[in-house]
Amino acid sequence: MAYSHNKRDRILQAGVQVFARKGFHNSRVSEIARHAGVADGTIYLYFKNKVEILISIFEEEMEKIINEVQIAVSSQTTSESRLKAFIQTHLEIVRKKPKLAQVFHLELRQSNRFLKEYSGTKLREYLTILSGLFEAGQAEGAFSAAIPANIFKRALFGALDEVATHWVLSKNKKYDPVASAEQIANIFLYGARISPKHK
Amino acid sequence: MAYSHNKRDRILQAGVQVFARKGFHNSRVSEIARHAGVADGTIYLYFKNKVEILISIFEEEMEKIINEVQIAVSSQTTSESRLKAFIQTHLEIVRKKPKLAQVFHLELRQSNRFLKEYSGTKLREYLTILSGLFEAGQAEGAFSAAIPANIFKRALFGALDEVATHWVLSKNKKYDPVASAEQIANIFLYGARISPKHK
Repeated sequence: MAYSHNKRDRILQAGVQVFARKGFHNSRVSEIARHAGVADGTIYLYFKNKVEILISIFEEEMEKIINEVQIAVSSQTTSESRLKAFIQTHLEIVRKKPKLAQVFHLELRQSNRFLKEYSGTKLREYLTILSGLFEAGQAEGAFSAAIPANIFKRALFGALDEVATHWVLSKNKKYDPVASAEQIANIFLYGARISPKHK
Repeated sequence: MAYSHNKRDRILQAGVQVFARKGFHNSRVSEIARHAGVADGTIYLYFKNKVEILISIFEEEMEKIINEVQIAVSSQTTSESRLKAFIQTHLEIVRKKPKLAQVFHLELRQSNRFLKEYSGTKLREYLTILSGLFEAGQAEGAFSAAIPANIFKRALFGALDEVATHWVLSKNKKYDPVASAEQIANIFLYGARISPKHK
C-alpha cells in the first residue's frame, strides 16, 4: 500500500476526535482506524503505536500554531503589540479548536511517556518565540532588563495554559477564553500595580 | 481492626512515595500497603480504591499547604508583601516536598477521574486566598481595579504551576525554584514594563 499523506492526516484528525471523546488511556487504535475510515493494520504503516499518534498530533498541530502565531506577531510593529498578538492568538486557537485544546491540556498530560520522554522540540520552539519577543522588548527598553526572559516566558505560558485548561474543563464553556487575553496582556505588560505616577 | 489515624496517615505517605516513583497508573494498592507496612486488606478499611488514596493525599496535603501559606501571609502588613509571601511559600513547599510536588504536578493530572470528577474544594480554597489578597490590594488602591481578581488569580497560579512543573520535570534539579519567586512577584506586582517614570 502506498504511503499517503492524506491518509496519515486523516488518522491524526481521527486521533484528536477519539482522544478528546474517550481520553487517551481509554482510546483504542482500532477505534481511531474506524473513525479515520482505514483498516486497523493501516495505522501501523504510519505509526508504531498510540503514543506515536499522540506525539505526531502534538508536533504537527504545534507546527500550525507556530505558523499562525508568527503571522499574527509579524503584522505588529512594537514589542508590546507583538506580545499582545501572541497572547490573543494563543487563546483564539484554544477557542477555535476545543477538541485539540482538550487533547493538549488534558490527554497529553496523562501520558507519562509523553511528559518524560518527549524532547519537546516544538514546544521549545513555541516558547522561544515568546522569550524572543520579550528580549527584543528589553533591548528596545520597553521591558525591564531585570527580569530573565526564561522566567517571563514560563510565567506567561503558565498563565495562558491555566486559563485555557480552566476553559477546557468548564462544563458549559459559557465564557470566552479570548476575553481574558487583554487582561492577561495588561498584567504581564503593564503589571497589576498602578504605577506611582497614576496613584 | 480499630480505625487508626496513624495507620491512615502512613498509607497516605506511602502513596506519595509509590505514586512518585512508579506513576499513578503503574502503582498497585498492594505496593502501597507494603510500603506502609500494613496488610493489603487493611488499605480497604480506609480507602475504597487507588483514586481515593490520591484524592485524600491531595485534600490533606492541600490543607497543610493552606495553613502554611496563611501563616506566612498573616505575618505581612501590606497587600504586596502578602502576595509576595504567598508566591514565596508556594515555591518553598515545592522545593521542600519534591515527591509530593511530583504527585501534584504529574500524577494528579494523569487521572481523568480526578480531573473531571473531583470537585476541588481545597484547590478552590487555595485559589480564593490568592484572589482575596488581590481584592484587598485593589480596595487599598495598590492594584488596578480594571483587572478581574479571577483572571489575576488564574494567571498567577498558572505561572507558579508552570515554573514548578518545569522544576519537577527537570532531571537534575540544579536550579532553585524559589529563586524565581522574587521575579514572578515582580512581574505580577510591578509589571514587566518599566513605568514611564523610569524611562
